[in-house]
Amino acid sequence: MTELLNNREYKKEQLKKLLLRIHGGEDVNKLKEEFRQVLSGISPLEIPIIEQELVKEGISARDIAKMCDLHVELFREAVKGTDELEERDLPDGHPLKTLYLENKEIMKDAEMLNLYARTLATTKDKRMRGEILGVLEELVNDLKKVGFTHYNREEMLIFPYIERRGLTAIATVLWTKHDEIRFMIKRLAELLRKKDEMSWEEFLERFKEKAGEAAFALSDMVFRENNIFYPTLKALLSKGEWKAIRQQEDEIGYYKVNPPAWDPGEDVKPLHPWEINPELSVEELLSLPKEVQQALKGQPLEFDKSELKREGDIDLGTGYISVEELKAIFEALPVDVTFIDKDDRVRFFSPGERIFSRTKSVLGRPVQLCHPPKSVQIVNKILKAFKEGRKSEATFWLRIGEKYIYIKYVPLFDKEGTYLGTLEITMDIAPYKQIEDEKRLLDWRD
Amino acid sequence: MTELLNNREYKKEQLKKLLLRIHGGEDVNKLKEEFRQVLSGISPLEIPIIEQELVKEGISARDIAKMCDLHVELFREAVKGTDELEERDLPDGHPLKTLYLENKEIMKDAEMLNLYARTLATTKDKRMRGEILGVLEELVNDLKKVGFTHYNREEMLIFPYIERRGLTAIATVLWTKHDEIRFMIKRLAELLRKKDEMSWEEFLERFKEKAGEAAFALSDMVFRENNIFYPTLKALLSKGEWKAIRQQEDEIGYYKVNPPAWDPGEDVKPLHPWEINPELSVEELLSLPKEVQQALKGQPLEFDKSELKREGDIDLGTGYISVEELKAIFEALPVDVTFIDKDDRVRFFSPGERIFSRTKSVLGRPVQLCHPPKSVQIVNKILKAFKEGRKSEATFWLRIGEKYIYIKYVPLFDKEGTYLGTLEITMDIAPYKQIEDEKRLLDWRD
Repeated sequence: MTELLNNREYKKEQLKKLLLRIHGGEDVNKLKEEFRQVLSGISPLEIPIIEQELVKEGISARDIAKMCDLHVELFREAVKGTDELEERDLPDGHPLKTLYLENKEIMKDAEMLNLYARTLATTKDKRMRGEILGVLEELVNDLKKVGFTHYNREEMLIFPYIERRGLTAIATVLWTKHDEIRFMIKRLAELLRKKDEMSWEEFLERFKEKAGEAAFALSDMVFRENNIFYPTLKALLSKGEWKAIRQQEDEIGYYKVNPPAWDPGEDVKPLHPWEINPELSVEELLSLPKEVQQALKGQPLEFDKSELKREGDIDLGTGYISVEELKAIFEALPVDVTFIDKDDRVRFFSPGERIFSRTKSVLGRPVQLCHPPKSVQIVNKILKAFKEGRKSEATFWLRIGEKYIYIKYVPLFDKEGTYLGTLEITMDIAPYKQIEDEKRLLDWRD
Repeated sequence: MTELLNNREYKKEQLKKLLLRIHGGEDVNKLKEEFRQVLSGISPLEIPIIEQELVKEGISARDIAKMCDLHVELFREAVKGTDELEERDLPDGHPLKTLYLENKEIMKDAEMLNLYARTLATTKDKRMRGEILGVLEELVNDLKKVGFTHYNREEMLIFPYIERRGLTAIATVLWTKHDEIRFMIKRLAELLRKKDEMSWEEFLERFKEKAGEAAFALSDMVFRENNIFYPTLKALLSKGEWKAIRQQEDEIGYYKVNPPAWDPGEDVKPLHPWEINPELSVEELLSLPKEVQQALKGQPLEFDKSELKREGDIDLGTGYISVEELKAIFEALPVDVTFIDKDDRVRFFSPGERIFSRTKSVLGRPVQLCHPPKSVQIVNKILKAFKEGRKSEATFWLRIGEKYIYIKYVPLFDKEGTYLGTLEITMDIAPYKQIEDEKRLLDWRD
């Protein structure tokens, strides 16, 4: 084992040296040969783990991503065709198969983007140029969706599983790259939109360059995922985990594929990230591919064993929360709520400073008795319309001093459509009417 | 008992007849004598119960209120001075004493209003008129607060207790009258504001008339409360009920009085309306004043015995609610929330259609891993500022298509000031930016 460890240590040292030399500005082509030699001794599954270690040693995820550009390119030859094989093994609708199939679409579109951009540059005919630009606009518009669908599913549904297992660096490196690609495509769309603001030559030069970069980054990511990320997932994730992923995928959506339903079996319990045992058992270890076994042996992985559900927590379906947290949430809401139950009785109101004050004495009181007698008839009409399903909201607004009060009543129903009660929501919308322009997270100053 | 019942039945019939005749347009002064005779046989505590019965028989609360104007006026002579006696019996800070003391202030201000309005009419000197108008403006401004404080406390804190006991008609009649008074004072304020839009003579005539009406209505209500409502309360409410009322009074506020703390004893449990036994026991019945005993004997009161707390309900401090209702409330909120706990882990997000979609896989995930790596540093800075108490919110806004997204982060703390976590609130403010003018409850159309 010491030998293996030393071997990995050696490889890591070599990779680190290369990385520093790339950073130092050395010619990448010159380094390619040395890099190929080092890589030949590393399995695809070992790379993310070494990256992980390098991140721990203080090298930024951004720098690692730069190194990856090079090693993935070199890697291409060695593992070419693997994706085809992997994909064929998987049943239709399996989330991993869907990812592979989407990558084929992405690869195709990336190649198209590059091809059309080059063709545009050599086309003299104005009508033809117009047509090509039309295709490019459509293509760029399509590619924007890669970020919302394919990447977003990975970031939101799949990364949590590898993060729990301590492999957070893989997630961070990929997400950094995803964001770079999102930005590149956004920039391309902007360039297309503003093409009339510059000369044709300027546009052409800039577009060809940026399209080439985006196409390369997209296909590079396909390669990275197919050959490093997906095999890692295949080796680590259980049926229950894939089942949970499949159950949530449709909410986010797909890139140009329509996966059928897939269920590994009714007896398989869907496993959410907080439900898995992130530590690999001996049996699991032995069933892993050799490369992963080797890599894991010398790896002091920081498993995430935190428990989500605490004693006394309320299971709200979308989270586990304590009564104390719940109270604080209702108090912090920028809206006041009051809930009357199916029998028209006040059952709950949000605590804290309110626009219309409420005291505990109102609990259990029929809503009809909580209003000036003059307006009871209308209250009853609204409730009748809600209960009979004729109305799904009633809204009102009025000025009181500096405040512009917006009041909304909504009927609540359970899953079977049974009336549960009505919620009164009150808020001051005056501050929102003042808001102009944008203020984004990255603009925040301490 | 049959005799007593018949006696009440007889009195009720007489009152009903009188009411119908007043309604029919008969001269009130003529009816006064007959009315006096009928009233002489009815105790102050019996009146609300008869009113109650009349309401049950289909006579509107509004009509009853009209009849009350007459009977209260007649009543004045018979029960004059009672309030002074009642008030002296009560300890300082007792909610009932506070009500009596406020009524002294209200009576004084109502008399002042009438006096100054009359003086204004006879004043020729312009400077003097200005001074009197100044006093009147201040007075009307003060009197506006009667509705927010004295009446509001009665409507919100005290009515629920008598409603539970089945005496809803008293509450409805008083509230109708309160609202009439609120409207009168509002109209007076408006008249003062718009005095330059009409001739002095016109203003004077209108103001004198309206001020007289308001002053009468205010003092009439004082009389009604002191002689009918408060004695009823004194006879029915227990120490625990007054304790619960006292605990909530400060939230609403007072009219020109500052009651000291009052506690009937540490051993006395505060009783909220839903916690009382609304049915009177034999012992309680026997300890009531004779008049109430008589009145209750023949009274088929509809006690409100509904239970507020159901099996499995969560006690949120300001209500008892089921998990199912809670889920439906979060789904219906016009804001999306995501809660990260004190360890920066996502613990809960509101379900349903959201601006930024969330899947269950995010639960338990450290918030730092839920953001594009580029923005992690800022997320950490914000959380640090929250945990150290340097910031109490961070807000952002951006346009996405038709939506104008407003994002707010707020740190949550428990009662001891310990950090519980941070809440992310997201909402689309575009619809609120479109809202103009007012739309009030009474404008609602089915």
